[in-house]
Amino acid sequence: MPKLNAAELEGVIVEGFPDLRDDAWRIEEVQDNFVRLRMPFHRSNLRPGGTISGPALMELADVAMYAAVLAMIGPVMLAVTTSLNINFMRKAEQVDVIAECRLLKLGNRLAVGEVAMRADGDEGMVAHATLTYSIPPKDQRPA
Amino acid sequence: MPKLNAAELEGVIVEGFPDLRDDAWRIEEVQDNFVRLRMPFHRSNLRPGGTISGPALMELADVAMYAAVLAMIGPVMLAVTTSLNINFMRKAEQVDVIAECRLLKLGNRLAVGEVAMRADGDEGMVAHATLTYSIPPKDQRPA
Amino acid sequence: MPKLNAAELEGVIVEGFPDLRDDAWRIEEVQDNFVRLRMPFHRSNLRPGGTISGPALMELADVAMYAAVLAMIGPVMLAVTTSLNINFMRKAEQVDVIAECRLLKLGNRLAVGEVAMRADGDEGMVAHATLTYSIPPKDQRPA
Amino acid sequence: MPKLNAAELEGVIVEGFPDLRDDAWRIEEVQDNFVRLRMPFHRSNLRPGGTISGPALMELADVAMYAAVLAMIGPVMLAVTTSLNINFMRKAEQVDVIAECRLLKLGNRLAVGEVAMRADGDEGMVAHATLTYSIPPKDQRPA
Repeated sequence: MPKLNAAELEGVIVEGFPDLRDDAWRIEEVQDNFVRLRMPFHRSNLRPGGTISGPALMELADVAMYAAVLAMIGPVMLAVTTSLNINFMRKAEQVDVIAECRLLKLGNRLAVGEVAMRADGDEGMVAHATLTYSIPPKDQRPA
Repeated sequence: MPKLNAAELEGVIVEGFPDLRDDAWRIEEVQDNFVRLRMPFHRSNLRPGGTISGPALMELADVAMYAAVLAMIGPVMLAVTTSLNINFMRKAEQVDVIAECRLLKLGNRLAVGEVAMRADGDEGMVAHATLTYSIPPKDQRPA
Repeated sequence: MPKLNAAELEGVIVEGFPDLRDDAWRIEEVQDNFVRLRMPFHRSNLRPGGTISGPALMELADVAMYAAVLAMIGPVMLAVTTSLNINFMRKAEQVDVIAECRLLKLGNRLAVGEVAMRADGDEGMVAHATLTYSIPPKDQRPA
Repeated sequence: MPKLNAAELEGVIVEGFPDLRDDAWRIEEVQDNFVRLRMPFHRSNLRPGGTISGPALMELADVAMYAAVLAMIGPVMLAVTTSLNINFMRKAEQVDVIAECRLLKLGNRLAVGEVAMRADGDEGMVAHATLTYSIPPKDQRPA
């Protein structure tokens, strides 16, 4: 069962990514090994041509994975990304982007998850990422 | 031979990533299929714990690849990232990060490159990325 | 709608991977943008320690993607893998491995898919892969 | 300094990949954090169209990384691949393929390496892979 709810997760993310705008992401749903985030549209996420930029989507994937891991293990600041693989598939224009992260493995030291990103209201994926996170062993996590 | 020099590339990057701080990156060297960038240290790139954040390094890798591709094919705004794979290997503290991008393939429609990122003055890699870019066919590029 | 059924796909795979044992894979289900394969257990797929080897799983992912793409576009021999990313998560012992491939994008020139691999009867993933395939433009495919 | 020389490594690989043909790979050079392997041409590595198959190159990358890790830490059977990312860039026809693996990180529990694969005599890369390996902590390795 998740140890943190949506509001608690938003607080943890603000601590973990302190340079963000306050409204950069919203947690919409938290389930076992799953979170859904919304990245509200903001002009600073556009690249020339008016589509959501690659780095904005990479960061969204990283935040979604961070949220999914911390939801399950608690607010452990030592959880760090060890790898990210992302494929960009469709352009997203001036819309919110929805990211759904599923944990595929939550081991003793390593978590693996995938993140599907879609333009709000669309079925087709804008981007898909797979990430690995290094996490502290169980005996070093919050109870 | 490169079609753009370091100063021209910096101008193109500012257009391509308009939301950046002016001093976000500097092009230090341009060679055939190679560029070296410096990301000067800035507090906004830190994560809690005081190390350079993952998203800052992902964006650095993306910019380095963009610069390496545009150096070779000219200022083609239609070049877009299709995939990125990154491994994070060592923590970088409050230092400049140097990114060296080598193009492994510059085909008719696809470019593949790798980016090695090191803390300024260190040998060990902080992160290593491999990227693919979709590029316009030759007959649609600037002469 | 798929253009090939399970039996037709098995025939195409035998042509595409001619060095395989006859019983190397079986197609169990074909749906829109989806195939499920079974890799029956065979001693030649073991690594020391008695678990299914990494290369056997990589090849399984590649075959699953090949099958999913050809199911949708028809028996086009020119479809080739352009990239594969795989994470190994759990050991699989002496059992059949089930691979489910979902196409995330089937574009004019590029297909992207993901493959979940599980030991037969288990929920946890043994490995997860993301692949990209270069495919011939529509006007060069079989009708 | 490497703990195993080329002949010792070949012996270890034969144990680690027991299903291989005897002449499947040859170690050509071993240096600190570096090995070069040759995969002699063999018809069983071809795909339709007469080019070296993707799975043959993936396995070559995996073996090269395995050799590079074991050269440095000794014959530790518990070293296992945790992830592989590969990009296919050029077709290789009926030639030997040369793989050069460089370790980018050799940590206490994780190794990261990259593998460049070229057709014998050619400069252009056929494929490029990045791999991560889980390795036993130092106090559990051979002296």
